[in-house]
Amino acid sequence: MDALISYLDAKKETHLEALKEILRVPSVSTSPEHKGDIDSLAEHLRTHLEAIGMDSATVHKTPGNPIVTAEWLHAEDAPTVLIYGHYDVQPADPLELWETPPFEPTQKGDRLYARGASDDKGQSFIHVCALEAWLATEQRLPVNVKILLEGEEEIGSPNLVPFLEENQSWCSCDTVLVSDTAMFGKDQPSITVGLRGLAYLEVHVEGPSRDLHSGVYGGAAPNPATILSDLLSQCIDSKTGKVLIPGFYDDVLELTNAEEEAVHALPFSLDAYKDAIGIQDVVGEAEYTVHERVSSRPTFDVNGLWGGYQGEGAKTVLPATAGAKVSMRLVPNQEPTVIADKFESFIHSIAPDSVRVNVIHHHGGSPVVMDLTSDPIQKAAQAFKEVYQKDVFFTREGGSIPIIADFKRVLGVDSVLMGFGLNEDGLHSPNESFSVEDFFRGREVSARFLAHMATKTS
Amino acid sequence: MDALISYLDAKKETHLEALKEILRVPSVSTSPEHKGDIDSLAEHLRTHLEAIGMDSATVHKTPGNPIVTAEWLHAEDAPTVLIYGHYDVQPADPLELWETPPFEPTQKGDRLYARGASDDKGQSFIHVCALEAWLATEQRLPVNVKILLEGEEEIGSPNLVPFLEENQSWCSCDTVLVSDTAMFGKDQPSITVGLRGLAYLEVHVEGPSRDLHSGVYGGAAPNPATILSDLLSQCIDSKTGKVLIPGFYDDVLELTNAEEEAVHALPFSLDAYKDAIGIQDVVGEAEYTVHERVSSRPTFDVNGLWGGYQGEGAKTVLPATAGAKVSMRLVPNQEPTVIADKFESFIHSIAPDSVRVNVIHHHGGSPVVMDLTSDPIQKAAQAFKEVYQKDVFFTREGGSIPIIADFKRVLGVDSVLMGFGLNEDGLHSPNESFSVEDFFRGREVSARFLAHMATKTS
Repeated sequence: MDALISYLDAKKETHLEALKEILRVPSVSTSPEHKGDIDSLAEHLRTHLEAIGMDSATVHKTPGNPIVTAEWLHAEDAPTVLIYGHYDVQPADPLELWETPPFEPTQKGDRLYARGASDDKGQSFIHVCALEAWLATEQRLPVNVKILLEGEEEIGSPNLVPFLEENQSWCSCDTVLVSDTAMFGKDQPSITVGLRGLAYLEVHVEGPSRDLHSGVYGGAAPNPATILSDLLSQCIDSKTGKVLIPGFYDDVLELTNAEEEAVHALPFSLDAYKDAIGIQDVVGEAEYTVHERVSSRPTFDVNGLWGGYQGEGAKTVLPATAGAKVSMRLVPNQEPTVIADKFESFIHSIAPDSVRVNVIHHHGGSPVVMDLTSDPIQKAAQAFKEVYQKDVFFTREGGSIPIIADFKRVLGVDSVLMGFGLNEDGLHSPNESFSVEDFFRGREVSARFLAHMATKTS
Repeated sequence: MDALISYLDAKKETHLEALKEILRVPSVSTSPEHKGDIDSLAEHLRTHLEAIGMDSATVHKTPGNPIVTAEWLHAEDAPTVLIYGHYDVQPADPLELWETPPFEPTQKGDRLYARGASDDKGQSFIHVCALEAWLATEQRLPVNVKILLEGEEEIGSPNLVPFLEENQSWCSCDTVLVSDTAMFGKDQPSITVGLRGLAYLEVHVEGPSRDLHSGVYGGAAPNPATILSDLLSQCIDSKTGKVLIPGFYDDVLELTNAEEEAVHALPFSLDAYKDAIGIQDVVGEAEYTVHERVSSRPTFDVNGLWGGYQGEGAKTVLPATAGAKVSMRLVPNQEPTVIADKFESFIHSIAPDSVRVNVIHHHGGSPVVMDLTSDPIQKAAQAFKEVYQKDVFFTREGGSIPIIADFKRVLGVDSVLMGFGLNEDGLHSPNESFSVEDFFRGREVSARFLAHMATKTS
């Protein structure tokens, strides 16, 4: 291990520069105009994996963005780890709120600023560096490793499950290693053992066949913007935080006493929480702690809203259409398609006859909960502790990684969610950043985890 | 009169071409980028008024857009008519819905398509043509005429009242002639004797200091888009059409029996109304007729709505801010500042403490009702009847022309609202158009009205 750690020390700047090169590519999966960036980054990653000594590095075409894979399968009788990451990123807008260009990585102190710095280019590249260190110093890996990097995570991974199903034999493994989550706090290593699911939909309200003069028609013509506001307001009670869609809570499993105690044991400061995101007060279900509300409870949020005149000054228009993007975070045992259907039925049931309402279904994902006593999770905790010198917290996160449920369903294995991010990284926000120190330390945690996975557990 | 009518006949194409030249200038008053267009159109109109023989044609600078005036004051002992119009237009967006370019006037059959074709370049140019006909054929006008064309009507005429007050002596007159309204239907001359007022505001809801990941924070962080929808939904009962702002109806004068009978006498087809604007059903106060709802009743409408992600696909963002533009149409005796203050107080009273809410006040205007038995209105009706061979309808309109109340207050005179538009003109909408036939006939109505104004009434 010493040679390996010396190697990682010596390569700090090289690895950081290699990460920056990846961050410079605007691989935004939701925008068709970035298809060229996506393709060139996929090829760049393939070349890099080949260069560090991985076998069969390949760019797989899909109906959408390519999947990059590589393998090293020479550890006889040792288990197989499938490392998963994604090289696509969220859009950078609103651009005007970035203090440095989103695709020109900029280091300030310990923070590296760029879209994707934490989610997920920085975190997934940690493992690539660890593989490089093993292969460079030992000319071998302690276990069999397959690596799979996809380019559609931010748009719901539409082509990942088909890939897993079509390549089930290649994908088979003993555990999946994923770094796409956050630590509970700075210097507080954490392994995520629960993730909320997601149902994401879009509502379009169509009224008059054209924009109307609100003076001439106001009072008799249905106003899609007014009606949309009314429909959305009926989905959640903003005072109690309760989602009002009939049947929404039907399948919700309440936390066990043990899980509830674990959540309550986590340190939490309301003032620090409010300060970190600049809010005057928290909202939501008063009978649950803030941490429970964002990790163990389902929610309803409006993610986007539009209609009518958005420019400067006043325009007295009665808009022809209005729309909203909405999403619901789900917990065990809520199923995204069931919840999406309940939402759609509810919206149609409350929409007035004067307008046409269309509901579009976007990607969803099932919630997952993992067994924290499992062998891979315990070994990950051990590797974390060796590097950070602290016991690991086992947490549930509010975000969704739908593919974790897919790995379980298609490959039959649990995942190890070894997160190196922090909540202040600003995922999906302007000025996303990642701790350079955690990037460096993460490489050692990953290298040690692979070593532990090679040892037999009684 | 014969020579004058022959002149107008002979000049049809010339006048239409002159109007098209005016329509080609994108004089959008709400967009600072069109300031140059505004200025050049003002100078163009000044030159034109001078060329047809009006005296003292002048472009007056204001803190905003210029006001163009001219006069002809040689009719001793005759009354004075102040002709008002506006040369600014609404923005043309959404541009993609225009079938022909908004600033390249295009004639199809009887319709001339362009932004401002009806509102108000086409309608106000009618009177300029009538003045030209009088001066060209008789070398005089039958009455004293002052003409005032402003460039800020679509943004609430912020500099018109100061101009009227500073130039009260020049502006003094016996009546104001305005063509900025619609006829009740094709070939149905109408004079508007009532206009709704307007209170226009903007609501900004500010939550977190930055856009957040809706998975990580959803359930505890206040969502401005969700909260905005909730605030707006509390302003109007979308089932009954009742505005829910406390005190909103306090000052509403119900129609007199005579006024109500006049409204009920107007022909109305629900099917034709629905077809004309492509709606499945009307909404609003069931105890009032559709015509009453849009002309004699106050309303609340959302004119614009924005927040979060509006692009393609899905973005799981909990937005930092959301906003809406809202307006209320007012009837006698509601006052715009009083109603605007009631709205603001109500919004603040229902907004949760978790967010900051700012309310911005845009322009407003008072409602007006005119005495239809007055001499100028009866003379306008006579001129209309002579050209259209039909009795005039006296109607109330749902739109607002705040300056009509200002003329009454500052100059002490009523206005004659001699409308040549049609509801299907699509004011403020894509594909605005104006009837070429009504443009031609309007010139004769205007010329005859000036002649009638010169005759003494017993």
